[in-house]
Amino acid sequence: MDVTLTREGIAAVEEALVAAIDSEVSLLNDASRHILTSGGKQLRPHIAFLSYLALGGDDLSEVVPMATAVEMVHTATLVHDDINDHSLLRRGRPSVHARWGRTFALLTGDYLFAKVYQLMAPYGTAYNMVFANACVELVEGETLQAVSAKAGEIDRETYKRIVALKTASLFEAAARMGAMKGGGTPEEIDALADYAYNLGIAFQMVDDILDVIGDPETLGKPIGADLAQGRGAFVAEGERAILTLQPAAAVIEENDPVQQMMAKLRSSGAIEVARLQAAEMVERARRALTHIPPSPARDQLEALTHLVLERDR
Amino acid sequence: MDVTLTREGIAAVEEALVAAIDSEVSLLNDASRHILTSGGKQLRPHIAFLSYLALGGDDLSEVVPMATAVEMVHTATLVHDDINDHSLLRRGRPSVHARWGRTFALLTGDYLFAKVYQLMAPYGTAYNMVFANACVELVEGETLQAVSAKAGEIDRETYKRIVALKTASLFEAAARMGAMKGGGTPEEIDALADYAYNLGIAFQMVDDILDVIGDPETLGKPIGADLAQGRGAFVAEGERAILTLQPAAAVIEENDPVQQMMAKLRSSGAIEVARLQAAEMVERARRALTHIPPSPARDQLEALTHLVLERDR
Repeated sequence: MDVTLTREGIAAVEEALVAAIDSEVSLLNDASRHILTSGGKQLRPHIAFLSYLALGGDDLSEVVPMATAVEMVHTATLVHDDINDHSLLRRGRPSVHARWGRTFALLTGDYLFAKVYQLMAPYGTAYNMVFANACVELVEGETLQAVSAKAGEIDRETYKRIVALKTASLFEAAARMGAMKGGGTPEEIDALADYAYNLGIAFQMVDDILDVIGDPETLGKPIGADLAQGRGAFVAEGERAILTLQPAAAVIEENDPVQQMMAKLRSSGAIEVARLQAAEMVERARRALTHIPPSPARDQLEALTHLVLERDR
Repeated sequence: MDVTLTREGIAAVEEALVAAIDSEVSLLNDASRHILTSGGKQLRPHIAFLSYLALGGDDLSEVVPMATAVEMVHTATLVHDDINDHSLLRRGRPSVHARWGRTFALLTGDYLFAKVYQLMAPYGTAYNMVFANACVELVEGETLQAVSAKAGEIDRETYKRIVALKTASLFEAAARMGAMKGGGTPEEIDALADYAYNLGIAFQMVDDILDVIGDPETLGKPIGADLAQGRGAFVAEGERAILTLQPAAAVIEENDPVQQMMAKLRSSGAIEVARLQAAEMVERARRALTHIPPSPARDQLEALTHLVLERDR
């Protein structure tokens, strides 16, 4: 990504993520920094910065704490996810759960969430309402996903709802808060929120596609893992209950049910259908951008839609 | 407790706790309401209300959302604690962990925390800074406790730090926020915060004493449980490393190490020392109250100090 416009902001977020972690309890510092410095994509902070710039903001430092909070709450959910999924690897490193154990992973996630709250408090009510709603939806999405995985089946509507709650809501909040700070009209702010919401849906669908057809080396993690957890229902087009696996199959081997399912998915055309659906969401995101004035930041928001659709990791 | 002054507020909190839980994910509603309606003491909301009234507040509804948030965040930590402690019972009911399993208990705690954030957002920056700091300290206290329990030893200084972080910080925040809303001078607000901080320390010490000498029937839970988790270090007066038990001894039987330790504690005089220390904290709380004007609310705050010290459950 051409990061000229946001380079300074993203670097500041990387610093702020570490600087925010200042506990007197050394374990919390160690575990938090372990995950916060593991090289996240920083996609959500990018969206906050570009939304801010696109509506006339000219001092990225105004947005750094909120962008940091957005990345940090995303990270907090990863730490808790890895407990529930028994994941040993995260971004090519041992997960907090693998390295510090379940109790401390739970507490580290809680700590990150509390720090998010602390980072956001100075912004006042309007921003915190937006962000708090996104946090609630995030947890709802994770829970709905776990409920579906436990039931061993999931239909397309539920899948869409999960993706909207667990991924799109935070994308949307990042854009909305950045846009509010940038100083746009309510219509412009809504347009950027709409953009980010649809981009978030596409992002998650591509994530789920990559879990089936991605290259483990490029991805830095094994594929089939989400599927083994009872996720990835975008593939269940017209085929309710295709996902009948129990969650938490820890090791995926040749010829096991997950491998068989992946082969079936690859040959069924479901991946292509999912790609088309992701492309449609990206198209909606692009249309939303036409409601804001042209600018270099808008161009980069548009460029993000291509990156999200075409990424291989 | 004579609840004349706060009866209306506490009833409103009980309603608000349930009303705040409105997820589209039914499991989150069920699990949240299960724990939120299990009859907590509502001590923290009481402190928020009385602090508000003591400094001139006259419309309890102003404080209901913050009092609800304070009780809810306390509840969220209980849900996560019960995962880490493998506790099957909470307030005489199955814990969320026991009834819905670990994954959903983790998510229910996260959900409650996100709802807390939502409840607090309308109050604006000053209140949210106070509350966010308390949330951070709460998690730090829980973590320090888990670190000590894992190490199998704990000294008096660390015990005091744990109690201050995990219990006193939220008491203090409840008083400070209520006092701010009530409209006192900075000195009066600080005095009430000081009162609640010391009351919180005493409350936790009495809690730990009751874990050793309480009546299980009156308490509604088995005794010795905290001790079995490597807690309750107030008893280690001059005897570093008296707690060498491993955490998570799930069942306590006659003549097992926990029973032996409890017998030793009861006969050592340590309980009496701990009681004197709790009484000293309560005395500090009472002295803090002399810095605010006399009122029926102040009388009730003073009455709380007796209740905390003399409670048997």
